[in-house]
Amino acid sequence: MVQAKTWILTKHFDGFPKGSNFELNVEELSEPKDGEVLLEAIFLSVDPYMRLFSSFRMKEGDVMVGTQVAKVIQSKNPAFPLGSHVVTPCGWRTHSLSDCTNLIPIIPEWPQDISLSLALGTIGMPGLTALYGIEEVLGLKAGETLLVNAAAGAVGSVVGQIAKIMGCKVVGSAGSDAKVAFLKELGFDQAFNYKTVTSLEEALRSASPEGYDCYFENVGGPSSSVAIQQMKDFGRIAVCGSISTYNDTTPQTGPYPHMTMIMKQLKMEGFMQSRWAHKHPESLKRLLGWVKEGKLQCREHITKGFENMPAAFMGMLKGDNIGKAIVAV
Amino acid sequence: MVQAKTWILTKHFDGFPKGSNFELNVEELSEPKDGEVLLEAIFLSVDPYMRLFSSFRMKEGDVMVGTQVAKVIQSKNPAFPLGSHVVTPCGWRTHSLSDCTNLIPIIPEWPQDISLSLALGTIGMPGLTALYGIEEVLGLKAGETLLVNAAAGAVGSVVGQIAKIMGCKVVGSAGSDAKVAFLKELGFDQAFNYKTVTSLEEALRSASPEGYDCYFENVGGPSSSVAIQQMKDFGRIAVCGSISTYNDTTPQTGPYPHMTMIMKQLKMEGFMQSRWAHKHPESLKRLLGWVKEGKLQCREHITKGFENMPAAFMGMLKGDNIGKAIVAV
Repeated sequence: MVQAKTWILTKHFDGFPKGSNFELNVEELSEPKDGEVLLEAIFLSVDPYMRLFSSFRMKEGDVMVGTQVAKVIQSKNPAFPLGSHVVTPCGWRTHSLSDCTNLIPIIPEWPQDISLSLALGTIGMPGLTALYGIEEVLGLKAGETLLVNAAAGAVGSVVGQIAKIMGCKVVGSAGSDAKVAFLKELGFDQAFNYKTVTSLEEALRSASPEGYDCYFENVGGPSSSVAIQQMKDFGRIAVCGSISTYNDTTPQTGPYPHMTMIMKQLKMEGFMQSRWAHKHPESLKRLLGWVKEGKLQCREHITKGFENMPAAFMGMLKGDNIGKAIVAV
Repeated sequence: MVQAKTWILTKHFDGFPKGSNFELNVEELSEPKDGEVLLEAIFLSVDPYMRLFSSFRMKEGDVMVGTQVAKVIQSKNPAFPLGSHVVTPCGWRTHSLSDCTNLIPIIPEWPQDISLSLALGTIGMPGLTALYGIEEVLGLKAGETLLVNAAAGAVGSVVGQIAKIMGCKVVGSAGSDAKVAFLKELGFDQAFNYKTVTSLEEALRSASPEGYDCYFENVGGPSSSVAIQQMKDFGRIAVCGSISTYNDTTPQTGPYPHMTMIMKQLKMEGFMQSRWAHKHPESLKRLLGWVKEGKLQCREHITKGFENMPAAFMGMLKGDNIGKAIVAV
C-alpha cells in the first residue's frame, strides 16, 4: 500500500492565493490492476493557467490541477515498463494510479544529458504553447516584429527564441532587471523592465518605432490597452494568458478595444495548446531538436520539496521565477 | 462655371455631433479638362464610419467624408459619358470635378426598376461590409448561429439576410419595437429590443440557449462584454463597428475580454470592406443577384435635401433609421 500526498484546493482563491487555500492530504493507493501503473512524481509544474482554471474548472476539495514528470514504480502495463518515465496530468500529488489512457511517454529520442524536467517546460506544454501561438495563431513570418510580455517566463522565453529562429525582430517586456538581462542573453533584440520605464507607451515605441506585426499576450490588463495602440495595420494578437487579471476580486476594466481593432484591422485570438494535440508528437521533436542544437536555451527556477508546491505556485504568480518554475520532489 | 455646395467639418466633434460642427460652403468649380468629368450628386450616404473617421482621418476645415451616387453632367472622358451614373467617394458635396481615377461605374447589369440609391446600401459599401464580414472574417457555415446587433441598420439588416440565405440561425438586436418587427419580416429567427429587455444576458440566452458560433459586432461598448460571455467555444467575432462608443468624450471602459477569449478560444477581428476591393465587382453582382431574386430586401430611410445632410447624419447616429440612411438631393 502506497501513500500519496496531495495538495487540495480547500477554498476558491479570493484574490491572490494564500497558504490557507491549500491543504496537504494523504490518500491510500491500492495496487495497480491489469493495465494500470503506479507512478511517483519526480518533477511537478506550477503554471499561471492553474490560477485561471481554479475559477473555471475546479471545485473546492479537488486536488490542484497540474502536470508532472513521474516514474513508473509498479507496472501492470507492458507499454509503460517499470522505471520508465511519463508526463501525466494527475494534479499536485506525489503518487498516482493510472489506467495509462492519458499518459504521455517521454519521447524516445530524449538524450540522457537533458533533464526530464524540460518535459514540463520548453519540451512540454509551455513550449508547445509558444510554438502553436506563433505558428497557428499569429502566423508569424520572417522579418516581422513580435512583442511578447512576461517574456522571461516559461512560455515567453520560448516565444522570443522561436521568433529569433524564424528571423524576426523580438521585443520583450519583463518585470526585473535580471529578467531583462536574461532576455538579452537569449538574443532578444530589445527588452525592458516594465516596472521601471517611465512610460510603457514610450518604451514600446522606442523599441520598435514602426510598431508591431504580432503580439504574444501573456499579461492582459492595462498593459494590453497600451500595446494594442502600437500594433501595425493588420496586426495579429495571440491571447495566451492574462496573468495581471487572474487574481482580480472585481474585474479590472479598460477602454474597449473595438475602435482600434477596426481602424487597424487587428485580429486577436485566445487559444490553448490542447487544440493542436494531434501535432504534439511532431512538435515535441522539433522543440527537442532546437534544444539539442543550442537554439533554445532553457532556464529553470527549481523549488525543492513537494511540501513547497503552494509556495512555488504563489512565487511564480508573483514573478519570482526566471524561466520555467518547477518543483523537484 | 458650376457652384458646388459642400459641408465642412468646422470643428472636431466633442461628444455627439451638433449642428455647429458643420458649415455649408460654396466652391466654384472649373470646367473639366481632358480626362475629367463634372459630377452632380443624386443620392448621398450617411454612415456610422463617418463619425469614427472624423477623429482619425479628418482635419477641421475638411469636407465631410462620404460616398454618393452622382450623374455625369459634363464629360471629357469617354469611359464616363454624359448622363451616366457613378459611385464616388468625394464627400458631402453637390458637385465635383473628378479625374475619374476613383470612380466606380454603376454595374452594367443594374436593372431600371432598382433605385440607384441601393449602390450606397445593400449593393454598395454596407452590403459589401456584410458579405465580407460573414465570408472573409467569420467564415460562417450553414447551420451555425449568428448574433448581429444594430440589426435593423444598413449593414446589420444585410448581415442577417445573408446568414439566412446561407442556412444559419440568426438572432438580431435592435433599439425599437418597429425595428424588431422589421427584423421578423426579414426572416430573422429571433429578434429583441435591447432597450426594453430586462436583461441583455437573459435575452441572448433565451434567443439561443446553446450560445453563438458567430457574432457580427456593430455596437461595441458594454453590450459586447455581455455578448462575448454567450459565445460557444471557438466562436468568431467580426468587429465591424462600435457605434455605442463613437461619441465618447472619455472612453467607456469595461472588463478585459482576455480570460473569456482564452477559456473559449475566441477569435475577434476588426475589418473594413476596402481590404477586399479586388473582389468588389464580383461581390456587387452577387448582392444585386440576391436583390433581384427577392432574397435581400432593402429598406431605406430617405431624407430630402442636401441642406439636411447634418440632420440626417445625426439622426442616423441616434438610430432614427430603419435600413439604410440616404439623403436624396
